[in-house]
Amino acid sequence: MTEPRSTLDNVRIVLVQTWHPGNIGAAARAMHTMGLERLVLVNPRRFPDEEATRMAAGGEALLEQARVVESLEEAVADCGAVVGLSARLRNLALPQFEEGDEMARELMALAEDMPVALVFGRERSGLTNEEIACCTHQLSLPANPDYPILNLSQAVQVCAHELYRAFRHRQPVQGDAARQESRRQKDLPPSREQMQHFQQSLATALEDAGFLNQPHAQTLERLQNFYQRSSPTRKELSLLQGALRALVDAAEKP
Amino acid sequence: MTEPRSTLDNVRIVLVQTWHPGNIGAAARAMHTMGLERLVLVNPRRFPDEEATRMAAGGEALLEQARVVESLEEAVADCGAVVGLSARLRNLALPQFEEGDEMARELMALAEDMPVALVFGRERSGLTNEEIACCTHQLSLPANPDYPILNLSQAVQVCAHELYRAFRHRQPVQGDAARQESRRQKDLPPSREQMQHFQQSLATALEDAGFLNQPHAQTLERLQNFYQRSSPTRKELSLLQGALRALVDAAEKP
Repeated sequence: MTEPRSTLDNVRIVLVQTWHPGNIGAAARAMHTMGLERLVLVNPRRFPDEEATRMAAGGEALLEQARVVESLEEAVADCGAVVGLSARLRNLALPQFEEGDEMARELMALAEDMPVALVFGRERSGLTNEEIACCTHQLSLPANPDYPILNLSQAVQVCAHELYRAFRHRQPVQGDAARQESRRQKDLPPSREQMQHFQQSLATALEDAGFLNQPHAQTLERLQNFYQRSSPTRKELSLLQGALRALVDAAEKP
Repeated sequence: MTEPRSTLDNVRIVLVQTWHPGNIGAAARAMHTMGLERLVLVNPRRFPDEEATRMAAGGEALLEQARVVESLEEAVADCGAVVGLSARLRNLALPQFEEGDEMARELMALAEDMPVALVFGRERSGLTNEEIACCTHQLSLPANPDYPILNLSQAVQVCAHELYRAFRHRQPVQGDAARQESRRQKDLPPSREQMQHFQQSLATALEDAGFLNQPHAQTLERLQNFYQRSSPTRKELSLLQGALRALVDAAEKP
């Protein structure tokens, strides 16, 4: 049975291009109060920083172990689920969580088997469309319609609290554990890296076949969004990848 | 605005290979009490029949207008949603409705724009796997675990009652009706015929590419099930069909 500690360890909090070091520190503190220890910073404006350390309080060790990377793709490559916090409805939508507790239950269930991530954007401008395309789900925390703009570190606190609660209330596996385990393995989501690989193969194959000749039609984006929102399991993705390769190979034979 | 009468007219009740003519008649009566008038019979054992007419009571006219066809595919070719009533969990599962009212709300919403169908199987053996593959959803009516086997016409009565209730409680379109209308059109599901056409194209393309060389691996079934459960919109399906054709055409060029 999966060791409980590693379930929490599979949850990553990712902050993208945070402007105020104080927010980074406050986010680290929020994480620490809820048993989350994996912080990843994508291109933080200033880090390390005294203000971050000061605001982190008891979460200072967490700050020191934070991973700093240059892109969101790099931050979440091995994650099976990536939830982007975003209030804005996008043109090509991802599956949405309407409530923090829905998100937390689903994320913690997956975290038993693979890394998962919660992604927070810039203080002023949130996440870009390209960053949302790196995600598997979107979450918009319900808030006062007249003023829904939570401070970044406070949004982290709310989400961390939901995740810790879902962790504490998780159900043990019932029934034939071995059979459930093997069924679960087959139905696991693929990692972001595997999904990105497929999306790239799809783009290349369609480009080579001359299908993407109308850039404004957003053909590729729509197709990629279809495959993303369909949430293929690891097994299904492997079949899709194989099928695509077979069709492309058939084009390369004499 | 869609005429209300035609919304109910878009709902088809499909009975597959019914053994007892009395059940056909009783089903027709059940439909008539709930405003449903479109009955389709796939290979009924005996029809027309005195017993059917007798049991139909006030629903006799409905019986006379019933369409008789030779296959389920033919019965539902133009339908945007096809819900199969089946208690059995299948190897490759379709999206499930857990309750009759969930099913009714979703079906009646779609029925504003396109034909939809509810499919009932044989009295003893229900629906075959091939018939389930013609469906978009499955519904299992929750019942006494010790004895969940509803009589066919009584299952029709329960479902008809749910559909009529959903029809009576439907919400009028709010806000900018024209914009919502155009958005809705793009997001409509494809007809079964369009979906079957894609599934067939997929099968042919993968066969020709030599990808289906391991019959026991159920590769094709799994891929078709993936596309089915992903519920592509009409627009997405048209892009998928185009992409597939482009890849196949690339294989046929010198």
